[in-house]
Amino acid sequence: MSVKIAKNSGFCFGVKRAIKIALESAEENHDIVTLGPLIHNPQMVEKLKEERIVSVDKITEIKGRPTIIRSHGVKKEILEQLERDGIEVINATCPYVSKTQEYAEKLSEEGYKVIILGDKNHPEVKALRSYIRGEAIVVANAEELSDKTFQKVGIISQTTRKFEDFQELVRTIVPKCHELRVINTICNATSIRQNSTLKLAKESDLMIVIGGKNSSNTKMLAKISENFVETYHIETEYEINKMWFKDKRNIGITAGASTPDWIIVEVYNKIIEYMGNINNKISKVEDIPSF
Amino acid sequence: MSVKIAKNSGFCFGVKRAIKIALESAEENHDIVTLGPLIHNPQMVEKLKEERIVSVDKITEIKGRPTIIRSHGVKKEILEQLERDGIEVINATCPYVSKTQEYAEKLSEEGYKVIILGDKNHPEVKALRSYIRGEAIVVANAEELSDKTFQKVGIISQTTRKFEDFQELVRTIVPKCHELRVINTICNATSIRQNSTLKLAKESDLMIVIGGKNSSNTKMLAKISENFVETYHIETEYEINKMWFKDKRNIGITAGASTPDWIIVEVYNKIIEYMGNINNKISKVEDIPSF
Repeated sequence: MSVKIAKNSGFCFGVKRAIKIALESAEENHDIVTLGPLIHNPQMVEKLKEERIVSVDKITEIKGRPTIIRSHGVKKEILEQLERDGIEVINATCPYVSKTQEYAEKLSEEGYKVIILGDKNHPEVKALRSYIRGEAIVVANAEELSDKTFQKVGIISQTTRKFEDFQELVRTIVPKCHELRVINTICNATSIRQNSTLKLAKESDLMIVIGGKNSSNTKMLAKISENFVETYHIETEYEINKMWFKDKRNIGITAGASTPDWIIVEVYNKIIEYMGNINNKISKVEDIPSF
Repeated sequence: MSVKIAKNSGFCFGVKRAIKIALESAEENHDIVTLGPLIHNPQMVEKLKEERIVSVDKITEIKGRPTIIRSHGVKKEILEQLERDGIEVINATCPYVSKTQEYAEKLSEEGYKVIILGDKNHPEVKALRSYIRGEAIVVANAEELSDKTFQKVGIISQTTRKFEDFQELVRTIVPKCHELRVINTICNATSIRQNSTLKLAKESDLMIVIGGKNSSNTKMLAKISENFVETYHIETEYEINKMWFKDKRNIGITAGASTPDWIIVEVYNKIIEYMGNINNKISKVEDIPSF
């Protein structure tokens, strides 16, 4: 019997960096805001409030305060508006996301019709589109492509998508264009995390995926895991139902890029407690989380 | 019972153009040479000899005569050498092949590692490589790729390859590089001819593929056809064995891009004759060749 946490769970480089930038700025300033939640994790956003880092949804709510741009980035027009308004901007956009924005801009400037693999409602994708001249095409997978053909196509991806979907999109585009330019903008950390989740899902008989219900990369982890084993996507330990663990022997835990370590530890401890209760013996823990 | 000729059989635009250029030049000049056979069809090359258009293999054999560059193109160094030697060059390189050479040069100048889908021993590919800075990689299919990874890869193709192989090569490269630039240099005429051959092969119980044994695109037609039905690759009517047609009802004929119409007609007539003999009745011919 075991409870294992997938390798490479939790905070990624971009999220760690954004939180560090935010906390350091909060030390220097009395009141600062983030335009939209800093990361897609409600519990972490609550914690940040305690440090007087408040999330606002609209520019009009900023009221002159220094403003943190979150890890997903914002639309180009918003950055320009903040500059015109004389707002102090603290840019915590993940450097990988910034790079993707640069690629998007460059491809469209060079006359490529830009196709983005991503969720069109995700803030990262909304921001990304604003860097593209003309209309970009956003698809969640290759099946969403129309039969339209193009002279020159450029393909990029939201940083947190599944690599296999990206590869399939590229394959599907080849007959639809004369020239194709592909830039793999999927974050390495994302695919590494997905692979670790996949590996653990295959050797578990129950998977717990921790992360914001609004977190794109966490939802993707749940989707990957679901293909192999019973899976629950939760935000905190309070959602755990102890009946899930009845007759289960090997539990796997994974967590999205915006899930703080303390939440992973709480979930881990709760599972150990329930496993002990239900199976009436102490679970053998092979992997101790290294927090 | 039927004997059908596949649509889009025989001479392609580039071959027609090269022969026209050669014949017009022969009218103006007493002796001209082609550097290598003008097209990959021994019978046509014989015919050209009658017009005093002789094929030579080496630059040293030119001996000051006006020189036709054949449809497959030649190495950049050879063109430069001919210029230094003061030879009159009549360039009959297929415009689609020239375009591929331009792409190859441009991709390598822009820092892409160029991968060519093609036959490394084919004159078109040998010529193409000479336009690339540094070493190009030539593969006949995706399986020939090594595990090596690259920052920037550019993919082009010999003009006569199968589109599906090109698409599979692109798909296979995606995980091996950060940036990928794909230019589809497969000639439309090639894929149209291949599709017509495929269609006819599916509805025939014997296929005759006509074209030079050294013709890359003809060999590809034979390969496509073989997957569905008994197939014979011949150069002329003299190779036909009448026993092939025993108990066969629907015969399909197709021909490579360098196969002259008169050879197709001769083969067609021979088959009609044999089908009549063996089956002891006149074959019903649904498609009359439109020569």
